[in-house]
Amino acid sequence: MNVCRIIGIGNELLIGDVVNTNATHIAKFLNKQGYFVDKIICIRDDYKAISDAILEAKKDHVNYLFTTGGLGPTYDDITMESIAKVLGLELEVNEEIVLKLKARAVARGHAFSEASKKMAILPKGCDIIPNGKGAAPGADIKYDGLRIFVMPGVPTEMKDMIKNYISHSLPNLGRYYQKKIIIEGIGESGLAQSIKEIASKYKDIYIKSHPRLRRGKYYIVLHIYVYDTLSEKAVEHVKEAAKIISTRFGQHIQS
Amino acid sequence: MNVCRIIGIGNELLIGDVVNTNATHIAKFLNKQGYFVDKIICIRDDYKAISDAILEAKKDHVNYLFTTGGLGPTYDDITMESIAKVLGLELEVNEEIVLKLKARAVARGHAFSEASKKMAILPKGCDIIPNGKGAAPGADIKYDGLRIFVMPGVPTEMKDMIKNYISHSLPNLGRYYQKKIIIEGIGESGLAQSIKEIASKYKDIYIKSHPRLRRGKYYIVLHIYVYDTLSEKAVEHVKEAAKIISTRFGQHIQS
Repeated sequence: MNVCRIIGIGNELLIGDVVNTNATHIAKFLNKQGYFVDKIICIRDDYKAISDAILEAKKDHVNYLFTTGGLGPTYDDITMESIAKVLGLELEVNEEIVLKLKARAVARGHAFSEASKKMAILPKGCDIIPNGKGAAPGADIKYDGLRIFVMPGVPTEMKDMIKNYISHSLPNLGRYYQKKIIIEGIGESGLAQSIKEIASKYKDIYIKSHPRLRRGKYYIVLHIYVYDTLSEKAVEHVKEAAKIISTRFGQHIQS
Repeated sequence: MNVCRIIGIGNELLIGDVVNTNATHIAKFLNKQGYFVDKIICIRDDYKAISDAILEAKKDHVNYLFTTGGLGPTYDDITMESIAKVLGLELEVNEEIVLKLKARAVARGHAFSEASKKMAILPKGCDIIPNGKGAAPGADIKYDGLRIFVMPGVPTEMKDMIKNYISHSLPNLGRYYQKKIIIEGIGESGLAQSIKEIASKYKDIYIKSHPRLRRGKYYIVLHIYVYDTLSEKAVEHVKEAAKIISTRFGQHIQS
């Protein structure tokens, strides 16, 4: 199965200091690979919040969990130890990572502190997700049907892990297709009846209109995409739905 | 009490098509008013997902819940009816809103459809949050100790409601203060010990470093802010912590 959930960890997200663009990047990647994201959560650097989120994912039979944030050297970066604790996994110092962190500190002219060493403490038996853009490694943890990809919160580091590790771990399921149609000069209400018809005809696709405003001009972005990635005809149904919209609203469609 | 939670509703958030900037805007507003945001959630336009989130907020003794999205005229906009259903509230057509929607459609040269009328169906007894920038009104629902502000997903409309309605409903608690210090030429690890000291000295404040990269240059953004808005000395403690950092790392601080 292909149910995914994304958890952003960090107080900065909850005080409105940082926009959670990480989740959007991960969700877009997963969606295009044919996976289903059921929920995105942002929580504080707090053991109870983290453990509750992990237990909730297990209870909800999530297959793949993606966390970002809380892997740095400071006292409040507690993601790795919190995940290990709630799952009952032993932590161990990875000496190979210690060496890498030391070399990195030397190269950058920083001292290697005990605080830095914290980044090398990982759950025993997990696979390491190399960090091509920063210090803290990620972890690929498999636990009782749940696979957790633990990543840093720095966007460039997370993106590097998606590109160079996770994209190889999660093959494209070939169950995804989307059409985006831009419609001008007609209100959302004017589209509603057609959308309703299409939605009741094809149960495995999703069609949704988003009103947008740019430079004083209103337009509608119509999304049609595979919703049920288990259906064999969903890709075809997206194409059929797009044809219906083109036929009915052709003169309003922006190419 | 002042525990808040933010729920973004809309498939577009879960497929990575839209970044949830709404949550960041609301969280920043709440934080500055002295309120505590414990969690941000994004879920699909799905009754079970919405009702689970509402019930979870009740279970967790959240005081203020903010939802965005799912108030439009299309078939999948089910936020208002889902909230009403899970709380057992009766829905009714608000004739005043119907008149406003009709006038709005006429002014824009659109037809007023049954689909549009859906936006005037609101929980009986709720207060209406006027929409100064769009069609769908919001709702201010008080239910058994939980207050829910239901808002549209279009950012300009949501922001209008925060500014013109919610900011008057949630007074500034005067329990908030923050310092943001930018530090260059020193690694996150070099700050870790001082941060740890400050954090153990002042339990009511929060201090966190964020490594950032701009134009090939690394720097640290250090946040110090009130964490426990119930403590009377927290504001003072933020100021004291900032003084400690200035004394120790003065030459690295960017003014």
